Amino acid sequence: MKSYVNMNKQELTALRDELSLNFSKYKEKGKKLNMMRGVPSDEQLALSHDMLACLSADDYTASNGIDCRNYGGIDGIPEMKKIFADLLEISADEVIVGGNSSLALMFDNVASNMSHGVRDGVPWQRQGQVKFLCPSPGYDRHFSICNYFHIEMITVAMEEDGPDMDAVEAAVSSDPMIKGIWCVPKYSNPTGIVYSKDTVKRFVHLKPAAADFRIYWDNAYAFHYLGDTHAEIPNIIRLCEEAGNPNMPLVFTSFSKVSFAGAAVACMASSKSNCEFIRKRLAIQTIGPDKLNQLRHVRFYKDAAGVMSHMEKHAAILRPKFNLVKETLRRELGGLGIAEWTEPKGGYFISFDSVDGCAKRIVSLCAEAGVALTPAGATFPYGNDPCDRNIRIAPTCPPLGELGEAMEIFCAAVKLATAEKYLAG
Amino acid sequence: MKSYVNMNKQELTALRDELSLNFSKYKEKGKKLNMMRGVPSDEQLALSHDMLACLSADDYTASNGIDCRNYGGIDGIPEMKKIFADLLEISADEVIVGGNSSLALMFDNVASNMSHGVRDGVPWQRQGQVKFLCPSPGYDRHFSICNYFHIEMITVAMEEDGPDMDAVEAAVSSDPMIKGIWCVPKYSNPTGIVYSKDTVKRFVHLKPAAADFRIYWDNAYAFHYLGDTHAEIPNIIRLCEEAGNPNMPLVFTSFSKVSFAGAAVACMASSKSNCEFIRKRLAIQTIGPDKLNQLRHVRFYKDAAGVMSHMEKHAAILRPKFNLVKETLRRELGGLGIAEWTEPKGGYFISFDSVDGCAKRIVSLCAEAGVALTPAGATFPYGNDPCDRNIRIAPTCPPLGELGEAMEIFCAAVKLATAEKYLAG
Repeated sequence: MKSYVNMNKQELTALRDELSLNFSKYKEKGKKLNMMRGVPSDEQLALSHDMLACLSADDYTASNGIDCRNYGGIDGIPEMKKIFADLLEISADEVIVGGNSSLALMFDNVASNMSHGVRDGVPWQRQGQVKFLCPSPGYDRHFSICNYFHIEMITVAMEEDGPDMDAVEAAVSSDPMIKGIWCVPKYSNPTGIVYSKDTVKRFVHLKPAAADFRIYWDNAYAFHYLGDTHAEIPNIIRLCEEAGNPNMPLVFTSFSKVSFAGAAVACMASSKSNCEFIRKRLAIQTIGPDKLNQLRHVRFYKDAAGVMSHMEKHAAILRPKFNLVKETLRRELGGLGIAEWTEPKGGYFISFDSVDGCAKRIVSLCAEAGVALTPAGATFPYGNDPCDRNIRIAPTCPPLGELGEAMEIFCAAVKLATAEKYLAG
Repeated sequence: MKSYVNMNKQELTALRDELSLNFSKYKEKGKKLNMMRGVPSDEQLALSHDMLACLSADDYTASNGIDCRNYGGIDGIPEMKKIFADLLEISADEVIVGGNSSLALMFDNVASNMSHGVRDGVPWQRQGQVKFLCPSPGYDRHFSICNYFHIEMITVAMEEDGPDMDAVEAAVSSDPMIKGIWCVPKYSNPTGIVYSKDTVKRFVHLKPAAADFRIYWDNAYAFHYLGDTHAEIPNIIRLCEEAGNPNMPLVFTSFSKVSFAGAAVACMASSKSNCEFIRKRLAIQTIGPDKLNQLRHVRFYKDAAGVMSHMEKHAAILRPKFNLVKETLRRELGGLGIAEWTEPKGGYFISFDSVDGCAKRIVSLCAEAGVALTPAGATFPYGNDPCDRNIRIAPTCPPLGELGEAMEIFCAAVKLATAEKYLAG
């Protein structure tokens, strides 16, 4: 098929009319399809069903003797810490196990630094206008936290191998009010890219103007491979320690997409000094995390190897869905010169770029035809994609059949929106 | 026995020496006994063991169709809200169900009001030095939250029927920087008293100088009766609504002392307007509470009546412990004129007052003999009991035999410390 950009006005008009007629048929069907958020499917959740009854009535004691039913154990039970430590290749005393939400741990860390400062630091909110670097497209809920705390967000371009590190280094080293950066280093949300060794190395050797600058390293997809190849990223906690920057990185991960999205276990990892500081807050803030749920996870997965072999089962369910999306995009949009998309080897998303100025229209067209997508712009600070081109595709939740229908509608919407755009000039 | 206060110096010296000799025998025994915190015993925790396996593999859908395994349902599942609403005699849309810790809900509410203000309010931290009223003796962890946020604590005397309301009314109506008051209205921590109808009525009709004044109504022992009589307190949410003060009370409770202390479900209740405001924060802060654990509680207790009949089982275990403490105190200290204590009909504590200036010494003597108590002073703001006389006795955790030994040592310590005190003049 002819590339849209080479068509004359007459050809484009004919194309637009044909696509519009075609699209109205989708609208008439009145489907209800959802590719909005990175949510595991029924089939994935069922993989952990045996966890629901894996604790017997006399199985409630952690390895350090703590009764998991009772109070105590503010930062998690030793065997749960060990699983996270083994997965992240750090030591158990660099781990704090929380409740069911790593987002809550990130929110709380930002809240704490705003009101009380980092260890031995001045509260961020007393230093002036706090700023965060936001590699984009990125994770909308990171940006929501900044927005909530009135933290100014500075967009940094996201490349194939991570954030634009020239920009990161220049900003971090010159502005002491830049206190943080959001990173999803492996199978990034939404682009699915993996930070290169060189990128991580440059993070490790940052020379921040602010002594209380922190890297929010949201390793949400640390073990979420789609294929046989497992991307590896350097161990930022170990490397920062070696480089004399031990307190700079704050690592987050969770089992939300390992066991049950709403009832899993989350963790934070950092230097012993940072963990000690956070434990002091925890001792005032809460009676401790749900240790029975931690024990349930330990009994079910047994160890880090058990988690990794469980992840193969997730991959087997997810692979056909990602393949279907890729194949549909290639078949419907390949060679038209009107779209680009990523083909990640892990994580939960495919990032899609339309021709500039089309993303909002595509999402709106999809909504008219019953396909819910993440709002256009959500992957950028303030919900504002300056090129209005990025759309996050979340293929994990719908069954294969529905996903196929949704992608067909999506591609039809892309073509129609692009033809309209070219016609409008 | 002769009252200490009527003894001459010679008699007191002889008494002190005898008590000291007697006490040294306890020290030699090298016991390890703990009456430090309000922790349920093994026997109590075992009451809920069947909850651990009460969810079958196909039982994960809440009544509104939400999959409890997955994301969603930011403020809890409808059937869990209903149980809390029925217990608190309010409506389900006045309830927000959280994670496992009501302390965490209180901490977060204070944090939120400090940094962002109440709904349509100015952040507390931007208004000047924030102050809270702290009826004392009170709950040390409430005071720790204030301390953490640099909130000035103003002690208010605790009477038989609640806080000194003359003092509360005078302070709240005159000082706009008084933003909150901590209350444990039923079986108060530590005195065990129940707020009278008149006290609650005066709370309802407070005329705060600060429009953003809030009553932190920690109804931690709402259903924690020891005997057949159930104390009732007026419904502060309903009454405040009727009085045109709907947003003033924030009610907290939890199942920490119903099911598992570390793995229960907590809730917050307030006006619909306050709940709506809090849900907005929650949507940024977390992916939602553990809904499977909520469903587990719903399946096990079924409804509010199921919770109440479960509480009878707790009472049957706790009653002999409270009785043993009361009997030992009466037998060993009754009529000596050197101590007063409360005899609560519910809750988790007995509050003990020694002669002024003896509490620290008693706690320290007990520690020497292997009995751990809540630190003297902990029940007052800044850990400072101005009369150095209040000690919180927590009899719930140790088995009856150990509790008897601990109370014997405690009474011996009280007598020795008092004799020393009178001798010193």
